[in-house]
Amino acid sequence: MQHFNHNEHPHRRYNPLLDEWILVSPHRAKRPWQGQNETLPEDNRPEHDETCYLCAGNVRANGIKNEDYTNSYVFENDFSALLKDDVLYESKNKSLFQLKPERGINKVICFSPKHNLTLPEMEVSDIEKVVQTWAEQYIELGNQDFINYVQIFENKGSVMGCSNPHPHGQIWAQSSLPTQVEKTQKNLRAYYDKNKTSLLKDYLDQELKSGERVVVENNHFAVVVPFWATWPYETMIISKRHFGSIIAMTAAETTAFAEMIKAITVKYDNLFNTSFPYSSGIHQAPTDRVSHPEWHFHMHFYPPLLRSATVKKFMVGYEMLGEAQRDISPEQSAKILRELPNVHYKTKNQ
Amino acid sequence: MQHFNHNEHPHRRYNPLLDEWILVSPHRAKRPWQGQNETLPEDNRPEHDETCYLCAGNVRANGIKNEDYTNSYVFENDFSALLKDDVLYESKNKSLFQLKPERGINKVICFSPKHNLTLPEMEVSDIEKVVQTWAEQYIELGNQDFINYVQIFENKGSVMGCSNPHPHGQIWAQSSLPTQVEKTQKNLRAYYDKNKTSLLKDYLDQELKSGERVVVENNHFAVVVPFWATWPYETMIISKRHFGSIIAMTAAETTAFAEMIKAITVKYDNLFNTSFPYSSGIHQAPTDRVSHPEWHFHMHFYPPLLRSATVKKFMVGYEMLGEAQRDISPEQSAKILRELPNVHYKTKNQ
Ligand SMILES: O=P(O)(O)O[C@H]1O[C@H](CO)[C@@H](O)[C@H](O)[C@H]1O
Ligand SMILES: O=P(O)(O)O[C@H]1O[C@H](CO)[C@@H](O)[C@H](O)[C@H]1O
Repeated sequence: MQHFNHNEHPHRRYNPLLDEWILVSPHRAKRPWQGQNETLPEDNRPEHDETCYLCAGNVRANGIKNEDYTNSYVFENDFSALLKDDVLYESKNKSLFQLKPERGINKVICFSPKHNLTLPEMEVSDIEKVVQTWAEQYIELGNQDFINYVQIFENKGSVMGCSNPHPHGQIWAQSSLPTQVEKTQKNLRAYYDKNKTSLLKDYLDQELKSGERVVVENNHFAVVVPFWATWPYETMIISKRHFGSIIAMTAAETTAFAEMIKAITVKYDNLFNTSFPYSSGIHQAPTDRVSHPEWHFHMHFYPPLLRSATVKKFMVGYEMLGEAQRDISPEQSAKILRELPNVHYKTKNQ
Repeated sequence: MQHFNHNEHPHRRYNPLLDEWILVSPHRAKRPWQGQNETLPEDNRPEHDETCYLCAGNVRANGIKNEDYTNSYVFENDFSALLKDDVLYESKNKSLFQLKPERGINKVICFSPKHNLTLPEMEVSDIEKVVQTWAEQYIELGNQDFINYVQIFENKGSVMGCSNPHPHGQIWAQSSLPTQVEKTQKNLRAYYDKNKTSLLKDYLDQELKSGERVVVENNHFAVVVPFWATWPYETMIISKRHFGSIIAMTAAETTAFAEMIKAITVKYDNLFNTSFPYSSGIHQAPTDRVSHPEWHFHMHFYPPLLRSATVKKFMVGYEMLGEAQRDISPEQSAKILRELPNVHYKTKNQ
């Protein structure tokens, strides 16, 4: 009988944040691919596009004119999935047909007035301004009485359902804790109650000691491919200090966080010499006016690409009905990302 | 203040099978779409394709020749994500780094020798043979001592990661209960222990009484858009009688089940006059030699399309980090599907 090797043999890993398992099939990356190829993003966009509804000074579909902004710019989403209005609702309380109205606010946040710039190509100081805007929004939205959670995220690339290449993210703030956040909180809480320490602090300490899944780090943050990563090149930015939300960050931590966002997104672009698509987002303490010592600030990156700039991982039949499945080991992914240059491929060519 | 209307106001619904909530934003289907369009599948495939590794008599990449099969044809996946081999493994038992080797068997099942035929275009009697093959495989695989669960599924269409248009599904059989199945079992069990009835039987009885989300039914099965559906046109085939797995089906039920597969997939194709992509799969009792009175046989269909044959719903940033979100109400989807013709659009044109 062979000895188990995690870079060769099928196995399952446990995600302690979500309390679920994923299947790892590291030998499977070898199979040939005859399926769908994604189209590459256009790479010669102008700095300003007259037809872009996110560019400074342009008029949006609803007739509103964008400010002539110079850094980041926030406005309410014209097609919000959540609405502020309160509605009259009588609960039927039927156990198999549970429903409740949900209130919230959706915002769009442009990262830069430059239509052709993405986070990896921005200066750290400009990314810092984005982080500051996130913090302001977390406070402003969280202060509203009907908002208990503020989800900050970015969909980058058309393959991630992003309908406009202008660099931007979104914020969905709402009354309830969304499912993934509630699960994470439950597991962080159970660990905290048991150990009186932060799950992610303990986790990160062990990751930093081993180094095997660390991609890059500075004094205040580290980027790791989680032991339980689902997407081929999934990563997490975790703060070295235990704090719950973006408003607890010091000035030095804000800079360090911006540096890590730049570092990982540059490596992503360098992986396949393409503007690397992903969905990313921050998980942090709710704004529900309750103390949350269990929360530990972190940011997830979920990128779909697997083999090349045009071949993604499909999370489909088995993954939807059974469980998430990956085709290369997290350790292999971390090594590949770690060894990539820290300078953006476009810069090098200049 | 307005009275709540589930076809207009944002709300959350509870999925009792997975114990999680989803966000419904029925007003949001109105937003314009400027994002990615999918490519339409080719629609003039020959009945036999020399280059297809699933067609009868053809040789696969590994040199093995397919049988000259006439109905369905099963073989072991040449690029299995799970392997049969047992490996030596010493558990480290570290709570934040849990891992265990996993054994299993992956199979491919061709539905028909005809390269250009999909389930909605097959005769009910031929779909019945596919159902019988599923039952045989469930027994054969489930009888192996290291197999405790048999996941039967289909990825249809390149947008669902399917790399070959020849009509086929897959079976992944393995030692552990996959995450989604384990969750479902836990919730079915809790309900059964409390009420001494099947959750899905009680649910279906109420659905059939209201009719609002029923798409089509016969004596033995019904197709509903679940109250908690995530994908725009998600459906479930649920057996009217309470039984746990495919081997408990009577001959009449086998026919009735094949009829329902045909009925829903025909409606799907008729929705946008296209070969409608989806991932589907059966959830049923494990083969772990333990009694499972809580299980209730059902089949899920998760189709990605939202607005047209080329515009899908993206489950991305908010959905990955927050919770699943849908843009039209399940009741609206059910009505649209219910009112579609029961005859395949290609047949009508002949
Ligand atoms: O097995 P296939 O058809 O090659 O692959 C497809 O289905 C699998 C099971 O859902 C997925 O893991 C793959 O990502 C997908 O491309
Ligand atoms: O808001 P957008 O960019 O129009 O839309 C995109 O992100 C949303 C939030 O993740 C998703 O619900 C949509 O399916 C996706 O296309």
